[in-house]
Amino acid sequence: MTRISRYPVPSLAELPEDIRARILEVPEKAGFVPNVFVTLAHRPDEFRAFFAYHDALMLKEGALSKAEREMIVVATSGANDCLYCVVAHGAILRIYSKNPLLADQVAVNYRKADLSPRQRAMLAFAIKVASDSAAIDDADFDALRAHGFADEDIWDIGAIAAFFALSNRMANMISMRPNDEFYLLGRPPRS
Amino acid sequence: MTRISRYPVPSLAELPEDIRARILEVPEKAGFVPNVFVTLAHRPDEFRAFFAYHDALMLKEGALSKAEREMIVVATSGANDCLYCVVAHGAILRIYSKNPLLADQVAVNYRKADLSPRQRAMLAFAIKVASDSAAIDDADFDALRAHGFADEDIWDIGAIAAFFALSNRMANMISMRPNDEFYLLGRPPRS
Amino acid sequence: MTRISRYPVPSLAELPEDIRARILEVPEKAGFVPNVFVTLAHRPDEFRAFFAYHDALMLKEGALSKAEREMIVVATSGANDCLYCVVAHGAILRIYSKNPLLADQVAVNYRKADLSPRQRAMLAFAIKVASDSAAIDDADFDALRAHGFADEDIWDIGAIAAFFALSNRMANMISMRPNDEFYLLGRPPRS
Amino acid sequence: MTRISRYPVPSLAELPEDIRARILEVPEKAGFVPNVFVTLAHRPDEFRAFFAYHDALMLKEGALSKAEREMIVVATSGANDCLYCVVAHGAILRIYSKNPLLADQVAVNYRKADLSPRQRAMLAFAIKVASDSAAIDDADFDALRAHGFADEDIWDIGAIAAFFALSNRMANMISMRPNDEFYLLGRPPRS
Amino acid sequence: MTRISRYPVPSLAELPEDIRARILEVPEKAGFVPNVFVTLAHRPDEFRAFFAYHDALMLKEGALSKAEREMIVVATSGANDCLYCVVAHGAILRIYSKNPLLADQVAVNYRKADLSPRQRAMLAFAIKVASDSAAIDDADFDALRAHGFADEDIWDIGAIAAFFALSNRMANMISMRPNDEFYLLGRPPRS
Amino acid sequence: MTRISRYPVPSLAELPEDIRARILEVPEKAGFVPNVFVTLAHRPDEFRAFFAYHDALMLKEGALSKAEREMIVVATSGANDCLYCVVAHGAILRIYSKNPLLADQVAVNYRKADLSPRQRAMLAFAIKVASDSAAIDDADFDALRAHGFADEDIWDIGAIAAFFALSNRMANMISMRPNDEFYLLGRPPRS
Repeated sequence: MTRISRYPVPSLAELPEDIRARILEVPEKAGFVPNVFVTLAHRPDEFRAFFAYHDALMLKEGALSKAEREMIVVATSGANDCLYCVVAHGAILRIYSKNPLLADQVAVNYRKADLSPRQRAMLAFAIKVASDSAAIDDADFDALRAHGFADEDIWDIGAIAAFFALSNRMANMISMRPNDEFYLLGRPPRS
Repeated sequence: MTRISRYPVPSLAELPEDIRARILEVPEKAGFVPNVFVTLAHRPDEFRAFFAYHDALMLKEGALSKAEREMIVVATSGANDCLYCVVAHGAILRIYSKNPLLADQVAVNYRKADLSPRQRAMLAFAIKVASDSAAIDDADFDALRAHGFADEDIWDIGAIAAFFALSNRMANMISMRPNDEFYLLGRPPRS
Repeated sequence: MTRISRYPVPSLAELPEDIRARILEVPEKAGFVPNVFVTLAHRPDEFRAFFAYHDALMLKEGALSKAEREMIVVATSGANDCLYCVVAHGAILRIYSKNPLLADQVAVNYRKADLSPRQRAMLAFAIKVASDSAAIDDADFDALRAHGFADEDIWDIGAIAAFFALSNRMANMISMRPNDEFYLLGRPPRS
Repeated sequence: MTRISRYPVPSLAELPEDIRARILEVPEKAGFVPNVFVTLAHRPDEFRAFFAYHDALMLKEGALSKAEREMIVVATSGANDCLYCVVAHGAILRIYSKNPLLADQVAVNYRKADLSPRQRAMLAFAIKVASDSAAIDDADFDALRAHGFADEDIWDIGAIAAFFALSNRMANMISMRPNDEFYLLGRPPRS
Repeated sequence: MTRISRYPVPSLAELPEDIRARILEVPEKAGFVPNVFVTLAHRPDEFRAFFAYHDALMLKEGALSKAEREMIVVATSGANDCLYCVVAHGAILRIYSKNPLLADQVAVNYRKADLSPRQRAMLAFAIKVASDSAAIDDADFDALRAHGFADEDIWDIGAIAAFFALSNRMANMISMRPNDEFYLLGRPPRS
Repeated sequence: MTRISRYPVPSLAELPEDIRARILEVPEKAGFVPNVFVTLAHRPDEFRAFFAYHDALMLKEGALSKAEREMIVVATSGANDCLYCVVAHGAILRIYSKNPLLADQVAVNYRKADLSPRQRAMLAFAIKVASDSAAIDDADFDALRAHGFADEDIWDIGAIAAFFALSNRMANMISMRPNDEFYLLGRPPRS
């Protein structure tokens, strides 16, 4: 069987109860356990912090739609050449956006994607946080405000890009493999 | 309707006979006309040379399988952030390789793809031709020979990478849009 | 007064009890509250996840000494041009290493720092995770194993580099300002 | 004798008739056969497509003067560190521009060359197509239109840059050597 | 004892009289001989030219304050990852600016430093001279003039950045080690 | 008349006697005054240090031939896109090497130039000093020693690359224009 991580992958039985519970509630929605759960469970404390952080950013209320948050993930993961995150979050973006084309567009080049100018500005900022955060200055905030983003929205954009800077590096380091199911998820049935 | 090019797209009726004939034979196989044909037909002489070059590299006999040639296209087009070529040739790679996962893997990071060491060496060379051709030297040729590639195979690898350096730049410049059909082609039916 | 963040900084009184408690126990050791605590407390849920993650990586037992973990933080934060982390963790590195010169050396160029070959290999890997994680492959793991690092140590090195990829981007985005106290901490008294 | 290619160079006698004819008509103008002809003739089908493409772009009518087309070749070949194209097309640029200094200026740094602002804008676009085509957007087209370029002229500029992206990579890969004659061509006789 | 250079370091006794005299007058101010003097004295003629150049730029009268000149040195040396110059000139910057925080700020990221907009523009130009001098054009001069810099001031800024491009490369090549004393110089006594 | 510098260019009559004398002895050899002399004479003290440094490196005895020193200048000036130095020192390299092709080869891509392996190693080191000096380590010295370079020769190579890092930046900043004469110097008469 193909390895899904350079590191040992725990079985559900050996996991602490809270982590097992967390993992077991995922398939109810997705139909399978995404590999990020079982591969990161190799380190329970880091697992707990990782998903607490993820949920704080991705599940919270706010002006950014769920699809827009996933756009940020997919665009910055593309910039970081992270296979797991492009494939897994590409699937989630297809589902949330109900647009089967958008994820592949955003992963390769958000400038050519079917986006609004506001979304394009959002992704330009996210890519700058991902790739050149030391150069961020007032002009970058002004550009987003001109598109109607509040400062709290800008925090959300930057924080998602920052969190996936972490996530992409972990996935690249351990060679985390995306589940085969993700590649097709959210794509229309073939006629 | 979404534009498929920054430039005017000729109708089949206005095209020279040889170009129309060439375009009309494509849908027999694919079921639709890929946008690269009609968008580049805006310049008939360049169209003829482009497809003559394409066919000389992609349809010829040789040690590289058709799937391997498409791997080179997808990997270098990913490095060049070319949406059209990643999506269109990703579909062709899925079909030729009969592997529905490979194209997405190669587009994002060939190092994490389900490839043989020989194929990985092939793509490392192709990426160097695409991104830093001035630094190619004897050691690069020796590395491929160690994997059993003949010098004529190496020409093929490099020439495909070089041709898509051209193709990617044209597609990026005119904002060539991939046909919607490509995104799903070669993916298995959803159960 | 100089701003320490682009975003509102909550007073201790307005913070949730658990966050206030966590912040109040810091000055017992340091004598002041590092700005990372009060600036990130603007977002309580993210605060909790951030410090849970930080503690899981930086306070755990393991083969890496506390000073070595801080070396990873300082070297990668230097590569990311993150003022807060270079100054704050530079201070902590001076204290843990009992070497008043090491932090400035590692922040500017770890190759010129007073380190063992094993530590230099550790930082080369950390910098690769920080700057080019998509290219990490077996050879990088082998290089560390040759210096006696176990695979779990390598996870630690990479995970710290990955976590500070997040931390550096947050600090750069919100313009987090290091406390003035950090600049002098761990330096010997002047004669 | 110095090799002019890593690959076998066919003699005129062994070449297909159409390629031999094409090659034989060159020296009538130049007085010698440029090495690009005999080195690429190693692959007749690619040769035919290469020169058909070249002629479609470089010999056509249009708003760009012949000298301006060669400026694009020399500037982008300089950016790609391609010895053959800088030296050979540098010679052609000297001849077409009747300016013995311009080619060396453009090859090293077009910003310091004796050019009009319109030509400088043309080369800035060409260099962007050569080096960062994924980032090309409406603003780049607007900048050229402001200098009076029609959209068809912009296609010409970008297509020449794209074609020499291919040409430079082939020359770098096979170590194509410029004919000694090119170095002096178009330079004034020394007094 | 730790080596301060890859190359032999002459004793004062073996040095030519003028160089010994020059070196001996330094400690009167600093209290110790900075390693740049004795390590570069390995090559007396280059030593003389180096310090003549240094003094012409750093000791002359002009609109730039001594602290501002050191800011240029520290910012560009940070961009070049030069340990000697960041540490040694960081100390001098602390002394001239009477600001114990500024040197560390400027070395890591001048955009986050406690500077005036005029000083920030000065350092942006200096960094461009250090990192991308071929792209300098009229707009860069205009930006500085808008902040009140005269053209002679701009020469000073650029010339200091250019001189330390040399200095940083020499220090990096010979692994010049900063004197331990520099790390603490100009920092306030710890209470 | 075309400007040769952004800054005022002093006439010989207004220059200090020593600088005028220095400048006047140049044409005896070259037949004209290279623009670097009169443009840098705008700052007499910097002029004196600049040429003292230049002469210390370029006129001294040593294992590197005069042609080899100029190769270092041309290769690193090419890497820095410095028009003045590529053109002026290209002429000098043609003269010293008695090879009319070498300068253009080295300026564009030293890997394709007619050089010995020893000279290629020399230029690889020089380019690393020019472009990434912080990464220089023992392995770089070992590589040159394997080609028979003594440590004093390595200093020469690195110091020339470092000095022209300064020179290239000054020329780029002030838009120093090469004399027209340089373009043809050292090229054979056309038959």
